[in-house]
Order: sequence, then structure tokens, then C-alpha cells
Amino acid sequence: MNITKPELLIDEVKCKANIESMNVRCVEKNISFRPHFKTHQSIDIGQWFKEFGISKIAVSSLSMADYFSKDWPDILVAFPANILEIHLMNDLARRIKLSLLVESAESIDYLSENIFYPINLYLKIDAGYHRTGISYDNYPLIDTILEKINQSKNLNFAGFLTHSGNTYGCLGIEEVNNIHLVNKNRFIQLKKRYITEYPGLILTYGDTPSASVADDFDGIDELRPGNFVCYDVMQVQIGSCHFKQIAVVLACPVVAIHKERGELIIYGGAIHLSRDAVKWEDKGIIYGLIAEKLPLGWGEPIKDAFVSSLSQEHGKIKMPKDELLKYRVGDIIYVYPVHSCLTISSMRSFMDLKGKKIEVYRGLQ
Amino acid sequence: MNITKPELLIDEVKCKANIESMNVRCVEKNISFRPHFKTHQSIDIGQWFKEFGISKIAVSSLSMADYFSKDWPDILVAFPANILEIHLMNDLARRIKLSLLVESAESIDYLSENIFYPINLYLKIDAGYHRTGISYDNYPLIDTILEKINQSKNLNFAGFLTHSGNTYGCLGIEEVNNIHLVNKNRFIQLKKRYITEYPGLILTYGDTPSASVADDFDGIDELRPGNFVCYDVMQVQIGSCHFKQIAVVLACPVVAIHKERGELIIYGGAIHLSRDAVKWEDKGIIYGLIAEKLPLGWGEPIKDAFVSSLSQEHGKIKMPKDELLKYRVGDIIYVYPVHSCLTISSMRSFMDLKGKKIEVYRGLQ
Repeated sequence: MNITKPELLIDEVKCKANIESMNVRCVEKNISFRPHFKTHQSIDIGQWFKEFGISKIAVSSLSMADYFSKDWPDILVAFPANILEIHLMNDLARRIKLSLLVESAESIDYLSENIFYPINLYLKIDAGYHRTGISYDNYPLIDTILEKINQSKNLNFAGFLTHSGNTYGCLGIEEVNNIHLVNKNRFIQLKKRYITEYPGLILTYGDTPSASVADDFDGIDELRPGNFVCYDVMQVQIGSCHFKQIAVVLACPVVAIHKERGELIIYGGAIHLSRDAVKWEDKGIIYGLIAEKLPLGWGEPIKDAFVSSLSQEHGKIKMPKDELLKYRVGDIIYVYPVHSCLTISSMRSFMDLKGKKIEVYRGLQ
Repeated sequence: MNITKPELLIDEVKCKANIESMNVRCVEKNISFRPHFKTHQSIDIGQWFKEFGISKIAVSSLSMADYFSKDWPDILVAFPANILEIHLMNDLARRIKLSLLVESAESIDYLSENIFYPINLYLKIDAGYHRTGISYDNYPLIDTILEKINQSKNLNFAGFLTHSGNTYGCLGIEEVNNIHLVNKNRFIQLKKRYITEYPGLILTYGDTPSASVADDFDGIDELRPGNFVCYDVMQVQIGSCHFKQIAVVLACPVVAIHKERGELIIYGGAIHLSRDAVKWEDKGIIYGLIAEKLPLGWGEPIKDAFVSSLSQEHGKIKMPKDELLKYRVGDIIYVYPVHSCLTISSMRSFMDLKGKKIEVYRGLQ
């Protein structure tokens, strides 16, 4: 591999093992699998899912749906419907099986008048995360919305969707399970209440932590995790995975060494890794951990080595002095990202272990 | 303007006023002006500087230097020389007046053997920020490096460079001035010591806070601020500018309204604004403030309205309920970014107030 500036390396073997493992969980639990592609954002990596028979996906914007629509005929935009993009909604609805997310009667009124092709609607439910969604027990609002959907021509009520995003603050599997069970048990009440009237309704669920480690998904029809495809330091801390499952590292040139302070400076900063951080063991706030370089890929974290601060292009790495002495200016260091979704979104391209570039969605522009 | 998804709006009038104001300061203080283009990262906005007679720039990577090299024949890469990009260094050195930054004898040895066209070298000096650089009083190392430069064929010692990045933690002009004076007075000792031997040596200095508000630049030859071109919430908090000088806002569609919690959800998240945050008044950690929308552009912040959290595409805005009631799903909200450099780097395109797109460097890929 010829690395001269920050490159996001992806290990296809680890990545496919993550996909397979999640797929096996879904099969065993008899849940349908709709992976969220907002993490990898890549047509090419999307193909890796097809090897496991995956046929439907979730994305986080209409333009990302557009990007994937050539390959994927069944896409759920798991983000509150942005009615300003009505033209793109209609264009997609004409071409693929499009599912949108709604949480207000006003949005339904607008869609009802302005959507000219059949689309599926999921109601976004807040089961405890309190970011978006109708409260799981706000039946009057749900009933109002369902009535409006029933009266419309092209809108089809497909089911309920929730995201237990509050598992991202957990430390350990037990905490994840506790939050998962509270949210999931609130969520499945909706099925009991509405299944008679809507026999085909689907409950779609899934954050990476609970999808990775929880056991009880009774009543859930579909799982939508995204981050699991690459995992990251944050997910290790939560308990969702082990380091050996992290499928991406940022490869960064060493540009300066400050032995007296036990610090290295890498070309690799906030515009590459993103500024996402975690509080890590006794290290305080960190922006990444350092992976051992192997002849092909990477191994476990190097003890007590971490990214202690970031500016636009600079990353500052602290490590024990005996470790530091192994490095020279011009060497490459591998950084496990804290949050792979944001690192991928910042980098917008991968390099595989053979040095081949992999395309990523660039839809912001 | 037809805004349907997050767009980074730039107000050319405010932007040019910021450029003019900084240029006037430099002229009055008899300092040469080398604006840092890592903030706006745009060929088109670069042209706005030419109206003020600016002829040289700083950038933060060799690939950014490459991007600007068509328009700018004198570029300083204000980042420790990444020797892995030696081919691009030579290519640029052949075409433009290229200045690089070094801080180690090893880098000089490498450049000395591998650079085939004349380049200027600045020694990176740490005058108090402790990110990179040779300590301002480490004369033995400076002397060693200078001797190596003198013995090389194509390397030319141009001067010393420092970045008082520790002003970014200041609250108010007095704190900025205190840090500035400490760092600046350390830095100018180098001139006294080396000017006889190197009569043309240049001291290049400049973070946006001290460049914006400090008065005493005696002994400094060149100023390199970058952020001032757009400013942001962080710079208001530091004391570098007023809100009316912030030349960019992120325009974001409202996708959900939660009256009971006093919250709006916008399409505009960490992948658009970046995760940079500040502690703001009594609001805790915030990720942006909300600007009043005007028929053309924007005005002052809306009282007690702020971005309270971000996920990948979602932004959560808190505001007083009487204010919240003015909004509907599908409205556009203007967000002042906390850190404009990272927001621009995330968005990679601007829209001007007439709705025209402005190109931004996309060199990460």
C-alpha cells in the first residue's frame, strides 16, 4: 500500500464477519434484517451485504436513498420526512419501494397532497430516547395520523419505527440490556394495540448496541443497525463488540515527535477523524486509540497510546516513551476511530488492504 | 433561494468586510498579510482577497496547496512537512514559490536529499501552545537545524513561524492579549538572536483571536489568521468578533417540532456542522446558535435558542415556546456554526445569498 496522507483503511474480512454475525443473529431470532447504510455509505460495501442475501436497506437521507437506488429496490429513509425534498421523494417512489418516516399530522397532510406514487409510511415512535418521534403511549396522535393516512390515496401505513439511541450512553452489556428491554417493551405494546386493524404492520427496531448484544426481540419484526458493519472505540466501550471486530482504522503519517512530552503529531485531525470523543479509562477524553500494525491489517490496541487532542489537520498522540522511541517522522500510525460513522462521513473514501480505493457517497455537495 | 436540504450560506458583504478589516489592521501595523485559506478552502472566495491586493497565502496541507496553486504563486504550507508527499512537494516547488514548515533535524536531512527545486523553510516554534514546534528557547536544536539547512542545496531558511493556538481557550479580549503578549515576546527573541546572521529572516505569526484584537505586533513581519474570514460562535465567545461579523450560517430544514419539550429537530447534524461545541452562558454545551432570518441574509441571534445536541443528520434545537410556535415543518432555520472551519470542511460547498453555489476544495479524497 502506498499511503502518503490520511487514508481510511477497511478490512473486508472483518467487515464481512460483522455482517455475517449480525445476519446470523437475525436469522436465529427470526427477525428481518434491514441494515442501515449511513455508516459505510458505499455502493461497493453494499455489495458485500448481498452475499448474505440482504435485499433491503435503511439510509438517513433522501439523497443517500437516491445514491443507493440503482442497487437497492427497497429503501427506508430512517429520518423524519423532509417535505422540502418532495420532488426527490416522488422520483424515488416512482422507481423503488420507498418507505418514509413521519411523526406529525402536518407532514401527512403535505405528503397526502403531494405524493403521486405509492409509498410506505412508518410512524416514528419515541420509546425513551427523546430525540424524535411520537411518544409510545400517545394513542390519540397515532390514531389521528393513521386516519389521515387511511384517507390518502398513495400513502400506505407500513408500521412503527423506533431507535433506542439512549443505549449509546451505556457502559457494558447489562446497561444496554436494561435500556433495550424498557424501550422494546414499550414499543411492542403498539403491535398489540394495532395488529388487528393493521394485520401486516411491522415493528422496525434497532440501534447497534442492542442489536449486537441483547437477546429478547420478541414482537420485533425488523432490525436496522448500521454501525456494526465497522464498529469503533465507542462500541467497544458500550460493550457491543471487541477490538478485533473494528473493521476500519485511519492510517496517518507521523509528522513530528516530541519525546520530552511523550507525544507524536500525526497528519490526521478533526477533518479526518471527526471530533467525536469518549472518556476512556484513566486517560480522560480521547479521540481515538492506536492499533498495532500487522503485515496485513491491524491487531489489538497499543497499551496506553491514544489520541489526546485534535485540531483541523493535527492529531496529538500520547504514548509511553519506550513505545514512542520506535517511531520516526514519515512512519504510518493506525488510529481506531471513536465513531466510525462520522470518520467515514469525513473521509468519504476507503482504501482496502490491497490499496484499492472504495467509493463512498458524496451527497452533501 | 431554493433550499431543500442543509446548505452553508455565505454573506459576501460580511466576508469582504472581514477581509478588509484585517487587511487594514495589517497595513496600519506595517505587517505583511498572508491569510490562511484553510478556513474557506475555496478558489472563488480566494478571489475576494485579490481585490485587497493580497498576493500570498497559507494553507494546511500540500494537497490544498496544489488546489490553490493555479491562482496563488506564493504558498506557505503551515503544517509540519509530511515527507511522504515528497513528489507533490517537488511538483509544487517547480511551479510556485513554496514554503514549508519544519521542526526536526530528521526532516531537514530528508528534504535536503530529496528536494530538487528551491524551497523556503520556516522553523516551527512553540511559543506556549505546546502542540508542535521547537521550544522558543531551544537554541541548540535551532542552530543544528539551521546548519543543516545552510549545507543543503535547495533549502532556503526563510524565518520562524508560530501559532498562538492557546488563545482559542480565552474568554475575552484581555485574556487573548495576555497570552498573545507572552507568546509574541518569546517569539521575537528569535529575531534579535538571528537577524544579524540572517538579515532577511521573517517572523510569521497569527491566530485569529490575537490578529483580531491585539495591538502590539512589534517585531512581527507577517500575520496568518484564517478563521476571521467567516468567524463563528467560538470567536464571539473568545472576543475576536461580534455576531454581525459571522459570514456563514447553516440553513437547515425543520423536520419535526416537539412543543411539549420546547424542541425543534432540524435536518442538519454532526456531518454538517461538525461536533465542535462551546460552553455557552447558562445553556451548557451547545453546537450552534440560531440567527434571525432577514429578507437578505441574517441578523442577530434569537434569544435563548440554541443547538443542544447533534447526531449524524439530526440537530436538536431548544428555544422558548413562544418562539417555537412560529415554526412549521418545512421551514428553514439558520444556525451560526460553533467553528466555521470545520463546518466548511464538512459541507464542502457554499451557497451565496443569490443562491449560487461556490466551489470548495475536496482534497481529502
